[in-house]
Amino acid sequence: MSHSQLPDSFFLHELANIAGKVSLQHYRTNELSVVENKPKANYRFDPVTQADRLAEKCMREHIAKVYPNHSIMGEEYGITGDGSIQWVLDPIDGTRPFLCGLPLWANLIGVTENGKSVMGMMSQPYIGERFWADQHGSWTSSAHGQYRLTTRKNIQLAQAILHTTSPEPISSRPDIHFMALNEQVLMTRYGGECYAMAMLAAGRIDICVEFALEPYDIIPLIPIIEQAGGKVTTLDGKRAEGGGAVVASGCPILHEHVLAILNNG
Amino acid sequence: MSHSQLPDSFFLHELANIAGKVSLQHYRTNELSVVENKPKANYRFDPVTQADRLAEKCMREHIAKVYPNHSIMGEEYGITGDGSIQWVLDPIDGTRPFLCGLPLWANLIGVTENGKSVMGMMSQPYIGERFWADQHGSWTSSAHGQYRLTTRKNIQLAQAILHTTSPEPISSRPDIHFMALNEQVLMTRYGGECYAMAMLAAGRIDICVEFALEPYDIIPLIPIIEQAGGKVTTLDGKRAEGGGAVVASGCPILHEHVLAILNNG
Repeated sequence: MSHSQLPDSFFLHELANIAGKVSLQHYRTNELSVVENKPKANYRFDPVTQADRLAEKCMREHIAKVYPNHSIMGEEYGITGDGSIQWVLDPIDGTRPFLCGLPLWANLIGVTENGKSVMGMMSQPYIGERFWADQHGSWTSSAHGQYRLTTRKNIQLAQAILHTTSPEPISSRPDIHFMALNEQVLMTRYGGECYAMAMLAAGRIDICVEFALEPYDIIPLIPIIEQAGGKVTTLDGKRAEGGGAVVASGCPILHEHVLAILNNG
Repeated sequence: MSHSQLPDSFFLHELANIAGKVSLQHYRTNELSVVENKPKANYRFDPVTQADRLAEKCMREHIAKVYPNHSIMGEEYGITGDGSIQWVLDPIDGTRPFLCGLPLWANLIGVTENGKSVMGMMSQPYIGERFWADQHGSWTSSAHGQYRLTTRKNIQLAQAILHTTSPEPISSRPDIHFMALNEQVLMTRYGGECYAMAMLAAGRIDICVEFALEPYDIIPLIPIIEQAGGKVTTLDGKRAEGGGAVVASGCPILHEHVLAILNNG
């Protein structure tokens, strides 16, 4: 497969338009929109909403029209088709902040080629803000302008900002020495979801640790972070397309240091 | 002092315009904008930025021009003047998310009359979203419209969404039985700062617990929550203008239940 079959970033924005429109129709509304609770290892409450399902369905229809030979993996409807190019959809990443009204959720759209994440879109339609990576770099756009994303480099651990979404898995994973890392950084923040990964790509957060991601949670974010100059791997330093415990750092040198602490304390 | 001396909400919006403009000039910029670290009991890193100081200075100048007889209490420059009407300014509430690029900080502007909070403004200029209370109710406006805020009522604890900004103070305050409350709710979220209080007023979050607020952190939010139908008190059920450990609930009946659990386990 050649790169010529990859979509251009215009199509990523079209899909983001579709997902954003559906998501906003269900955001901060009073209808009961939780349709299912899918409890997972780390959370007792993992809601699926009508917006998740409808947004994925609409994106799938648009992809099938334009790229009928591409495969699709989505959070709600699994894997369809095959082929070396696969779309990876998390229609609403951060369903919990979505339900709380906090604008830290996003429509995530990724593209893998032979299993490697090569393009990604994170769109936050309430703010009207997007973060994406195409073949040319990582970018963000909002009412405040369009910019190239670059991570923060050459930062010491003692000046670094650390993020993880929930403190709840920390105590259940003593093999991941999160508190040892926490003690050495400038400050630790919680609750940022995928938006924290975008802020890592934007050079504002230095380290993100997530304990249990699904592939569709991280695949769309990998090229956004990598093409901004950051590093994202599993805890053992391998590529993160498979999800699990995932670590992202703005600076590759910092990343090695962070992995050593998380693995060894 | 009569109510006629209270400002109208138009003036709250003017102050929010001023603070928003200054804040955005320093948001997500690469200049080193932390000018001082003021560590407090619950946080090792409590930054003050140039934006905090400049935003408060500009708001003070505008208030002094229009309401020269009013007193002002601000996070950065203390108390000036006296009189029964006092402006309460937290130029950037949530300096930590401000530094991380997370749009959960806000310009907070409150008005007290004889010590009681009667008007409030929370403005998030990056999103372009405001939450405020005047003499007529609680309101929000953004690119998505202007609405009256109302809290969620008649909710059982098992269906309630709980929020606290940081998990760090939980273990240092065993007298506040946060984990007992955590075990009984639908889900607990972290990191929302003042934005979580706005989402309580908007009916999306049901309970907010903060362990150590300053008066200027909470005074501007009190009327926004109260006029939306919620309740906000100290841990012992008194008015919260003095700060400290503060609990807010969307529903007064739920609030009594929450205080009982937090105090008694």
